[in-house]
Amino acid sequence: MLKIAILGIGQTKIDEHWDLSLREIGGNAAFAAMQDAGIEKVDALFVGNMLSPMVSGQNQLGAFFSDWIGLWGQEAVKVEAACASGAAALRAGLMAVASGEIDSALIVGVEKMTDKAGHDVTSALATAADADYEVEQGISFVGLNALVMRRYMHEFGWRHADFAPFSINAHANAMHNPFARLHQTINVEQFEKSSMVATPINLLDASPIGDGAAAVVIVPAEKAASVKGRPRVIVAGSASATDSIAVHSRKDPMFLSAAYESSKRAYEMAGITKDDIDVFELHDAFSIMAALSLEACGFAERGKGVRLGLDDEISPQGRVPVCTRGGLKARGHPVGATGMYQVVEVVQQLRGECGETQVDGARVGMAQNIGGSGATIITHILKAE
Amino acid sequence: MLKIAILGIGQTKIDEHWDLSLREIGGNAAFAAMQDAGIEKVDALFVGNMLSPMVSGQNQLGAFFSDWIGLWGQEAVKVEAACASGAAALRAGLMAVASGEIDSALIVGVEKMTDKAGHDVTSALATAADADYEVEQGISFVGLNALVMRRYMHEFGWRHADFAPFSINAHANAMHNPFARLHQTINVEQFEKSSMVATPINLLDASPIGDGAAAVVIVPAEKAASVKGRPRVIVAGSASATDSIAVHSRKDPMFLSAAYESSKRAYEMAGITKDDIDVFELHDAFSIMAALSLEACGFAERGKGVRLGLDDEISPQGRVPVCTRGGLKARGHPVGATGMYQVVEVVQQLRGECGETQVDGARVGMAQNIGGSGATIITHILKAE
Repeated sequence: MLKIAILGIGQTKIDEHWDLSLREIGGNAAFAAMQDAGIEKVDALFVGNMLSPMVSGQNQLGAFFSDWIGLWGQEAVKVEAACASGAAALRAGLMAVASGEIDSALIVGVEKMTDKAGHDVTSALATAADADYEVEQGISFVGLNALVMRRYMHEFGWRHADFAPFSINAHANAMHNPFARLHQTINVEQFEKSSMVATPINLLDASPIGDGAAAVVIVPAEKAASVKGRPRVIVAGSASATDSIAVHSRKDPMFLSAAYESSKRAYEMAGITKDDIDVFELHDAFSIMAALSLEACGFAERGKGVRLGLDDEISPQGRVPVCTRGGLKARGHPVGATGMYQVVEVVQQLRGECGETQVDGARVGMAQNIGGSGATIITHILKAE
Repeated sequence: MLKIAILGIGQTKIDEHWDLSLREIGGNAAFAAMQDAGIEKVDALFVGNMLSPMVSGQNQLGAFFSDWIGLWGQEAVKVEAACASGAAALRAGLMAVASGEIDSALIVGVEKMTDKAGHDVTSALATAADADYEVEQGISFVGLNALVMRRYMHEFGWRHADFAPFSINAHANAMHNPFARLHQTINVEQFEKSSMVATPINLLDASPIGDGAAAVVIVPAEKAASVKGRPRVIVAGSASATDSIAVHSRKDPMFLSAAYESSKRAYEMAGITKDDIDVFELHDAFSIMAALSLEACGFAERGKGVRLGLDDEISPQGRVPVCTRGGLKARGHPVGATGMYQVVEVVQQLRGECGETQVDGARVGMAQNIGGSGATIITHILKAE
């Protein structure tokens, strides 16, 4: 694929934005990214979103946002892959630029979730699972992840408290991210005593929903030679893979085969191994997903992902820093926007803009976005040069 | 863009498929396309769909269908642009192949609309319009088109009956298409006496919804040199453009500027003019849209699109044959699938497989898919060689 650079990034704080509409939230991230890129026009817009038809009664977000942003007449489209919609939009944009059809693209991941009551959102989120063979049986999306977590604990002998470091690290890092949804540190006791959502997943295993948007501007790398004296960030690897949509159809429900596949392809494309990754923004929608992601991407053996947290290897100073800006757990999880937050955060790390949670000398970062309970997994590897 | 060929096509009959699920309808078109292409595996899947989260409670159709079709592990994603979702998925697939990231793609446009009551579908279709500034005011999607049609009649002095030839031609052509939803000819009297939907749009101005799917397999043209002795069909032009999502925001609500833009770019890319088009599968969701499309694409002057019907220029033997397989009006309009039906039908024309409605010596065909009331318009030009 043609070498492509990320020229600008933008994001909004994740929150319950009662005062901002879907259009304003997405627009704010888009304007910030274009300002950061120092350009006023792009050839095309790719929007990642999952819930707006159900929550906001709005489809056709491509035209919707190109209109609002002022990209009148330009090509624009929405891409959806449940919670992996953000990264899916980026990948569509990358391929569009690489095809030579367009020379620049704006990618916006956006979600407005808090305009509906909680049970409506739970029901909307369940559309990520298999409507016929999972949801119809009465299970929620959290419920599916709870079954996987319980089986994992049983199979590999972990206690619930062993997952605490993932959430503690995420919350600690979010303290230094002004865009994060939650700004409060937590400890093991709080983690253990938190309200139950779907046994064994409690409130501190689960990421909070929210309203938010994150965006990037991409151009062929040759057109981004020297931007404001900061390191140029290029997309070194990009890959997407799928697994069965129903968890029960998988040979092994505790192995994220689409994470294995997409990270393998992304490593190959970037010409690196997992040892070259300085920072890994993984998809910790639930603490169990953090463990499974680390295993599928080669950072831990099967059943040992939890170990990395217990051994303090996941902090910004650790061997495999994850969720350095708060992750889904504390930065927040505005579903269709999350994949773009991850990419924006990796860019911040590679630019050295992360202050207290900066990973020293970060040159290579990975962002991995998961749709459903592992059905769509998209991996991007970025490099500073 | 890299020269890309359409290697195989597939479609299902459009109907109320009470006996078939979303998964089966999309799968059937996909299997037919792969069989027609003579291949068993593709690198990636692009699904065009608008309503499944709302009507079927199912998102993430990329993974959903790659699982069902047996493309295990492959890249898969859904693309949405309201009623232009089908063509948007094709364009995403074309750019993906042209980028060199993948070598073959399956594109499926699919919609299952009849599992909900009529008012639920009307409400779901309204998500194509502007939720804040149009739908919130109480107008339906048909209502928006009715306002445009009434203004057009007033402005240019046409009577309602003057639009009849569009519907009569579509119904006549659908008689010879086994996949069409409606198999009945109509005349001017029936057209005039049909039940009112939203004045001046009556039942015979409006396309019927339905369940259906259409699919194609694409590969780089150099890999499709000689297929079963039939002409090779290549994508000569592809372009997408947008307009404001709200009709009232347009300088001229009666001019489809995104059709003008995308057809202009597609003509340029194909190196042709409108005079080279032998068959034009246009987006006659309502009879007024047929007139506006012909005008914006250069086949008629402003306000004169209706003339082409009255002068009998739109039949398969006419100067500008449109809706040769029944169009949206009689083939049917399963919204997110429609764009792919149009492309499949143009391929059938270029292969000379259209029997009674075959356009003699058709070598160049155009398919144009419209999202919303003209907010997203995507044009593809195909050539036989």
